[in-house]
Amino acid sequence: MPSTATKSESAKSGAAASASFADRLTAAANETEHLLDRLLTTAPADSEIARPARIVEAMRYTSLGGGKRLRPFLTVETALLFGVKREQALMAGAAIELVHCYSLVHDDLPAMDNDDLRRGRPTAHKKFDEATAILAGDGLLTFAFDVLACPETHPDASVRIALVMGLARSAGLGGMVGGQMLDLAAEGRFGKNDTPQGEQDVLTLQAMKTGAILKFCCVAGAILGNAPKEKRDAAARYGQVIGQAFQIADDLLDVEGDAATLGKAAGKDAAHGKATLVDLLGIAGARARLAQLVKDAEDALKPFGADAVILKDAAHFVAERRA
Amino acid sequence: MPSTATKSESAKSGAAASASFADRLTAAANETEHLLDRLLTTAPADSEIARPARIVEAMRYTSLGGGKRLRPFLTVETALLFGVKREQALMAGAAIELVHCYSLVHDDLPAMDNDDLRRGRPTAHKKFDEATAILAGDGLLTFAFDVLACPETHPDASVRIALVMGLARSAGLGGMVGGQMLDLAAEGRFGKNDTPQGEQDVLTLQAMKTGAILKFCCVAGAILGNAPKEKRDAAARYGQVIGQAFQIADDLLDVEGDAATLGKAAGKDAAHGKATLVDLLGIAGARARLAQLVKDAEDALKPFGADAVILKDAAHFVAERRA
Repeated sequence: MPSTATKSESAKSGAAASASFADRLTAAANETEHLLDRLLTTAPADSEIARPARIVEAMRYTSLGGGKRLRPFLTVETALLFGVKREQALMAGAAIELVHCYSLVHDDLPAMDNDDLRRGRPTAHKKFDEATAILAGDGLLTFAFDVLACPETHPDASVRIALVMGLARSAGLGGMVGGQMLDLAAEGRFGKNDTPQGEQDVLTLQAMKTGAILKFCCVAGAILGNAPKEKRDAAARYGQVIGQAFQIADDLLDVEGDAATLGKAAGKDAAHGKATLVDLLGIAGARARLAQLVKDAEDALKPFGADAVILKDAAHFVAERRA
Repeated sequence: MPSTATKSESAKSGAAASASFADRLTAAANETEHLLDRLLTTAPADSEIARPARIVEAMRYTSLGGGKRLRPFLTVETALLFGVKREQALMAGAAIELVHCYSLVHDDLPAMDNDDLRRGRPTAHKKFDEATAILAGDGLLTFAFDVLACPETHPDASVRIALVMGLARSAGLGGMVGGQMLDLAAEGRFGKNDTPQGEQDVLTLQAMKTGAILKFCCVAGAILGNAPKEKRDAAARYGQVIGQAFQIADDLLDVEGDAATLGKAAGKDAAHGKATLVDLLGIAGARARLAQLVKDAEDALKPFGADAVILKDAAHFVAERRA
């Protein structure tokens, strides 16, 4: 399976990542892959209605066989801090990954970022067609809530509904969808006035577009574990910082990376005239901010002591990744 | 408010609709409008994150000021059979309406049905732009689950999670999204072999594309009321029949209606070469089927006795509507 090799490679590319971290990232990725593979079938066991082959094929194409699966990994590892069963954390992680995959499919559409390649493969609207890509994205988003609502995710309905609320909020208007709208505005699509100029504008955009879901990955682990408020807040703080670090690392890669390493076109943000923290702080300034965020992440993990060693490694991995 | 006049008109256009039915349809429509207006704001009371103005504007444009609000009406009236608080039923109905509105926005996109007009107004991608329309649809779908997850919808988490599961299933792969995929295939987009020819194919497509959500409207009322299985099944059966009747009436309107009455282009199905029950049964045959479905709906309502008079009227309204 070539995708496993890629994941393993990715895990090792973070300079400070320990072998144990790399193994655990790969393990979560493989388990997520198998779970999504099991869930995304044309003939679900618990339904009499067959799912049309083409939509299932498009959803499988856009959600299987790729990616570091950082989001499910964060959910699983945070959940383990609270003694959550691994299968439950994987269900929640898979739901979040479905939302992540839907966002990629819709962001790649001609009317949005108009990308032909994703992880080195044709994007959904290139592989299939635009209508199928739109529907596959809609299907992935809808299915994420189906997965969260399953008793398999957690026997307690109040836990499941808290997950639904958290996912809806982090993926919605005050999160990912709202952030994507700000991102399009930042390209000057709707008039020059919309383009954010200052650091706070950029931080808000990024906190919404990519940060909210990454933060929720960690909050989801705490929700699953019925964590006390203090520890839940710590997980949220860690997730928030991870989200910021992820985005700065991404912006640095965009400036420094090349298309071969990233599997997508580099320098796209500059081409679109969007301000990033790298523009505002410079490369050295952005690197310093990133180092501070890694320290902040470590601070956020203090309440968990030695249990959080893997999440500490994850902070380094996110900040120092090369792809 | 011109939209109220339009709704009242629509309600009266069903020949057998009683004055009381028309008033109640209008009341549910107005209450749904007010609720959506309150929910879709840039500054939600329970969140520190401001929602970007443009996405809120697009979501308001595509969900306020139009439509009969048949779906929330069905949820409210079914819920009343089980003694559910009206505010709770309206929350669930509003969530379903948000999903309905998202489906219209995405179906209208150039890559899908490529419609320029909806309810006599420019469609979202014409009024705004294609990227904004895609995001507005994504936002409406995501927000529907946010609304269902609110304690305002029902204090019992197990009721709310049952609603989430029901909505995800009826809107997803085995429901609306899957049905839309079958519908595109029926146009011959992906090769001639996909075009359904027989009655069963057409019934399956319609049961998924429009039927699943209409059925769920009625099931949602029963879920909110913790209805016993027998009555829940009766509500489901009624909703299923209503969905079939709705679609045949729609197909008859498509053949017989004119653009002025419908506010959209008539005869579109024929132009796309899609088979409908009207094609398969003829106009007289389709009318006979519709009459039978109204009787089936009345039969399904028998367990509720005189309480169900408004839902009985609703069956006639759905079958006999002229717009």
